[in-house]
Amino acid sequence: MNNARSQFSAADESFMRRALGLADRAKGATFPNPAVGAVVVDAAGRVVGEGATGVCGGPHAERRALKQAGGAAAGATMYVTLEPCSHFGRTPPCVDAVIEAGVGAVVAAVKDPNPLVNGKGLRRLRARGVAVRTGLLGKEAALVNEDFFWAVANRRPWVALKLAMTLDGRIADCGGGSKWITSAASRQIVQDIRRRHGAIGVGSGTLAADDPKLTARCGRKTYYPARIVFSSTGNIPKGSYFMTHTDEARSIVVVKNNNKSKRKKGIERRGVEYWYTGASDDAESIDTFLDMAYAEGINSILIEGGQRLASAFLENGFVNKLYLFYGGRIFGDGLNGLSFSRGLTVNSPLVLGDVSYQRIGDDLLATGYIKNLTF
Amino acid sequence: MNNARSQFSAADESFMRRALGLADRAKGATFPNPAVGAVVVDAAGRVVGEGATGVCGGPHAERRALKQAGGAAAGATMYVTLEPCSHFGRTPPCVDAVIEAGVGAVVAAVKDPNPLVNGKGLRRLRARGVAVRTGLLGKEAALVNEDFFWAVANRRPWVALKLAMTLDGRIADCGGGSKWITSAASRQIVQDIRRRHGAIGVGSGTLAADDPKLTARCGRKTYYPARIVFSSTGNIPKGSYFMTHTDEARSIVVVKNNNKSKRKKGIERRGVEYWYTGASDDAESIDTFLDMAYAEGINSILIEGGQRLASAFLENGFVNKLYLFYGGRIFGDGLNGLSFSRGLTVNSPLVLGDVSYQRIGDDLLATGYIKNLTF
Repeated sequence: MNNARSQFSAADESFMRRALGLADRAKGATFPNPAVGAVVVDAAGRVVGEGATGVCGGPHAERRALKQAGGAAAGATMYVTLEPCSHFGRTPPCVDAVIEAGVGAVVAAVKDPNPLVNGKGLRRLRARGVAVRTGLLGKEAALVNEDFFWAVANRRPWVALKLAMTLDGRIADCGGGSKWITSAASRQIVQDIRRRHGAIGVGSGTLAADDPKLTARCGRKTYYPARIVFSSTGNIPKGSYFMTHTDEARSIVVVKNNNKSKRKKGIERRGVEYWYTGASDDAESIDTFLDMAYAEGINSILIEGGQRLASAFLENGFVNKLYLFYGGRIFGDGLNGLSFSRGLTVNSPLVLGDVSYQRIGDDLLATGYIKNLTF
Repeated sequence: MNNARSQFSAADESFMRRALGLADRAKGATFPNPAVGAVVVDAAGRVVGEGATGVCGGPHAERRALKQAGGAAAGATMYVTLEPCSHFGRTPPCVDAVIEAGVGAVVAAVKDPNPLVNGKGLRRLRARGVAVRTGLLGKEAALVNEDFFWAVANRRPWVALKLAMTLDGRIADCGGGSKWITSAASRQIVQDIRRRHGAIGVGSGTLAADDPKLTARCGRKTYYPARIVFSSTGNIPKGSYFMTHTDEARSIVVVKNNNKSKRKKGIERRGVEYWYTGASDDAESIDTFLDMAYAEGINSILIEGGQRLASAFLENGFVNKLYLFYGGRIFGDGLNGLSFSRGLTVNSPLVLGDVSYQRIGDDLLATGYIKNLTF
């Protein structure tokens, strides 16, 4: 096995971190592909080329880095955050480009869990005399594409849930007021979290109340994940941003209904797709929706509320990751962030795994993964 | 002014930190006196004596340190976390002992805000030729006795509120289950927070449901703050720990009632004091209770719930400091930690000041002060 960390030098790690940075910055612009970064380094330790995955259908990170390197790629080492692909997808296999360029060695952070690749790319490189090492910063590389890897393995979109609450767990005051519970700095982090997802989902109540843009405004660049509104009726306010800006992003209304024969998608009216789940039960409807979404190339969804949608996703085991923002304030009453139809008990609560806490000024961001989906 | 930090050396700071450590460890055993630490250092930089405030009526920190130092105190420097007292209280003035011992210099972290002292002690030392410097680690020293200083200035007990919640703000599940929401490590920190308070208060519902000991079990040592139960009827379960262990700690039942003539305290039955506030309104009753408590030498109270008591104290502006523990779990329903009778709005919430967040394993402790008491 070539995955012991000790085989890597500090320089190796530094180049791989650079590749990870490229991957991380590309996140959100590569859907439905994983975000990958590649750095080509010559024998003298100079970076001669680098690149990240571009928009869907464009060249992969490896080809971009090789193009930049040109002739200097011969005999060089390529640091890449994900095993190069070996199959024809929207673009030809990257391993061929690596071999053609005469790259002498490849350091890959992780193997591609995609069954179409999964070690085949690395084997092909080795068979053609390229020295291959793997496992450098593998955990970090897996984290960048945790959603993608999970989605491919489970053939379902990765679902993250974000809530912005007071310290007493409220997402709105008694009058419905929620602007703003968290600070501007926290809300900027939300924009960056949005960017990393293929779609943003909200309930129709939230859409009607807040008329959100559902874009990811990150510095000078704005990202446009797919927009999904969950509705029982399919009636969305005609003047809403959602209905009037369908040119910006894929716009989907998911309609819960109990007419099995109406389970269908792709009905498009005025640029809006209407997806009928054919199920009136929340869990069943979401379940069907997730199948539809994956089939439609949506690998990850960030659910942003309100209470009912968030609770339905979380209670029924459809959430992978939680982003809970807390403003340093208290309402003492109002709308709870979560309200399950069947509350859990102290003996079998929903326990978060890999919890992390990040202070943002006087706010706090708690992130965690769903540990037990068996409740 | 002698309070510029720059006049102090690293050695000065180190000795004062040692004195602060002594004060901090003494906290909880000195009520109703502040917790003070004193370290005596000779000309060669050796610690020749140290001490902390003992139980009420016993010698103060300065006298203990001087006794340990003996003849070595002559010409030495004393580091003390609070200005030495200059008045006769339960013990004779410490400044006299300092002068008699021939101490050459005193470094005091802060002046004593007690109007009976407030600079008089330091002036008397200077008048007798003792070199005096103040302001070293003053903020840290003020923090150790923040409750005491506030109580003396306001002639009311300092009130802290502790809640242990899920990440969705619940203190119990739908069945009332709350053991346990937070980890053993968090609960040990609660014991240490209890130790630092002169009294622990709970509602009668919490007492009936949990039958808490209300002691502070810190390592091998157990502390016994006064126990206060808030009740509308005065009826406390006869077999409860509270009713059967009145020999351990001062045990008080605060009875809310609307008979003004019944406002009285000190009625003792079987070791339990019954305090009648003569007010049926929550705010009025707590207000009266706090006056009674201060007059009875209770400088600080830690309120531990339940929801109704916590909300009444917080909503009506009686809380100084919050300790909010979050377990890394979610119930999705159950009892909210807080439920005000008049919920606040997003435009005028209760904002915490000096918020700090401390990770405890997968749990989180948020502490903060009440910033706006004007809502």
